[in-house]
Amino acid sequence: MTTSQIPEKMNAVVLDSYSGVNALRVEKRPVPKPGPNQVLVKVAASPINPSDLAFLDGNYGFKKKTPTVPGFEGSGTVVAVGSGIMGRYLMGKRVACISGKGDGVWAEYMVTDATLALPLASSVSLEQGAMSAVNPLTAMAFLDITKKSGHKTIVQTAAASALGQMVNRIFQNSGIQVINIVRRDEQVDFLKKAGAEIVLNSTNADFAKELKETCKKHKAHLAFDAIAGLLTLQVLNAMPRHSKVSVYGGLSFEAAQIDPGDLIFKGKSIDGFWLTSWLEKKNPLQSLQLWQRAQKLLATDLKSEIRERYPLSEAKKAINEYQNQMTGGKVLLIPEG
Amino acid sequence: MTTSQIPEKMNAVVLDSYSGVNALRVEKRPVPKPGPNQVLVKVAASPINPSDLAFLDGNYGFKKKTPTVPGFEGSGTVVAVGSGIMGRYLMGKRVACISGKGDGVWAEYMVTDATLALPLASSVSLEQGAMSAVNPLTAMAFLDITKKSGHKTIVQTAAASALGQMVNRIFQNSGIQVINIVRRDEQVDFLKKAGAEIVLNSTNADFAKELKETCKKHKAHLAFDAIAGLLTLQVLNAMPRHSKVSVYGGLSFEAAQIDPGDLIFKGKSIDGFWLTSWLEKKNPLQSLQLWQRAQKLLATDLKSEIRERYPLSEAKKAINEYQNQMTGGKVLLIPEG
Repeated sequence: MTTSQIPEKMNAVVLDSYSGVNALRVEKRPVPKPGPNQVLVKVAASPINPSDLAFLDGNYGFKKKTPTVPGFEGSGTVVAVGSGIMGRYLMGKRVACISGKGDGVWAEYMVTDATLALPLASSVSLEQGAMSAVNPLTAMAFLDITKKSGHKTIVQTAAASALGQMVNRIFQNSGIQVINIVRRDEQVDFLKKAGAEIVLNSTNADFAKELKETCKKHKAHLAFDAIAGLLTLQVLNAMPRHSKVSVYGGLSFEAAQIDPGDLIFKGKSIDGFWLTSWLEKKNPLQSLQLWQRAQKLLATDLKSEIRERYPLSEAKKAINEYQNQMTGGKVLLIPEG
Repeated sequence: MTTSQIPEKMNAVVLDSYSGVNALRVEKRPVPKPGPNQVLVKVAASPINPSDLAFLDGNYGFKKKTPTVPGFEGSGTVVAVGSGIMGRYLMGKRVACISGKGDGVWAEYMVTDATLALPLASSVSLEQGAMSAVNPLTAMAFLDITKKSGHKTIVQTAAASALGQMVNRIFQNSGIQVINIVRRDEQVDFLKKAGAEIVLNSTNADFAKELKETCKKHKAHLAFDAIAGLLTLQVLNAMPRHSKVSVYGGLSFEAAQIDPGDLIFKGKSIDGFWLTSWLEKKNPLQSLQLWQRAQKLLATDLKSEIRERYPLSEAKKAINEYQNQMTGGKVLLIPEG
């Protein structure tokens, strides 16, 4: 193991039980040590993503043994490495870091597998690099799925989110039409100003009719839905026969609803999307190419706006602010903020 | 066109608008005349099926122009035919008759396409023949789907229905385990007496836990669901990763509910089953073989119990009785009852 000036203790956000933001505290912990094929990253920044909120509530795809440090993605500099050639290559490099089975990124330091520390191109800032995995790769996955199944139009809910905005830009540049669904008129204006052609407000009285006509006109047969609840039913209902809704989030905290007639008589279906599963099906070369493409687009199509930066000590406040308003820029945790 | 002693007028059940059983009346109508490649059937019997109820409510896969005669299946004797070789072959034969685009079977006479009049084997009574298409072919479709996807166990809801009973018999004889879900203790007893090994009552307090353990033990990854609503969520929740619920009915009159986490993190999915779509994918030879196999099993695995017979004039009463109690034997309409 190589070391530089690494302290013994660090500040970390710790989750005691899967009961949301109130189960968090900030405490001093020993700085972890990288094992074989692992690296120690001095964290520069880490965003709060919807997947982090789901993790805090115990609604994510897996749980870690508590107490644990949350935070799925971030960025920083590799300051120590365990044995193994990959680690040695990464020593001193600026990386995006993704948490594996161990503790996460909401800390001053984090250990992760060398394969989950992705070198950042020199053009990418540490702040943009901190948000370069979850949303950018999800947007690219949506595009890949859409292209492979030959769709010329998609529907997306939560369209004003950081991910929703990326989807608009990257799909537009690929010549694929996006039917955007948001919940507020300001979000309609915001997306239209950003260049989106079709934005519908799901709280409008004639939303269902409007959506149906729009889906018919643009032959939309595929939707990506982050909300669930009644909106899933409305979207599947609005699309023509043999359409599919892929659910990737449950921001309504409600069960997804489906009209049985859509399933039975109209050949429609519903499945789920999880970035982790999707990436697992890629071989190392495909993953590398994806990562390189994402890096190139981080300053443009796959850029995330930043609303606010908080030090680790104010993590609870930061999360509450993000929960209250999940569009309009990301909230970053900055260990040395 | 060949004719025998066919009257000018007949009794028929007529639906005026898609607003359920109350929109039905029985009236005198002209006996229809078969066109090219059509046959006129003197109806012997016709069951009331859940799909007929959905049709009356306007919740079926298509609507016909009203006023129309409902009734999707029945049996009778071909008493007149239009031009075409198939019709001539069928003249005088006992057939199962399925309604196509025109009026249905709840009448003294019905015209249908020659391809939808299926000769009955001599061993099959007209009453069993009247119930030889919808449920028997659905049970065979479920078996076909299950075998082709390599499942050794399935889950079914509404397990005490006529179809549910057929599924139990035909799957048992194919060595495939069925996890049956019903809503009443009498139905548990009834199915167990009939030889079903696993029958769970969804109104039991520990149903969800019981179902989960049973699905795990028997590695159940496929379910056929006629109920929708919360039960769909419970069934999908109870099954292991990468399981699927196929919805073929909405007897709860509620939207199917799904836990987003099941879709996103556990690779589970939901689709629909409609016999009409399934049959459309079969070539004529496959359809003929299916029909022949079904005929052979009509006295055993694919037998329907009969609870009550009503004349056409009492169609409303018959439908009400069936709606109030959809298990415990089929209700037949007998034109000359």
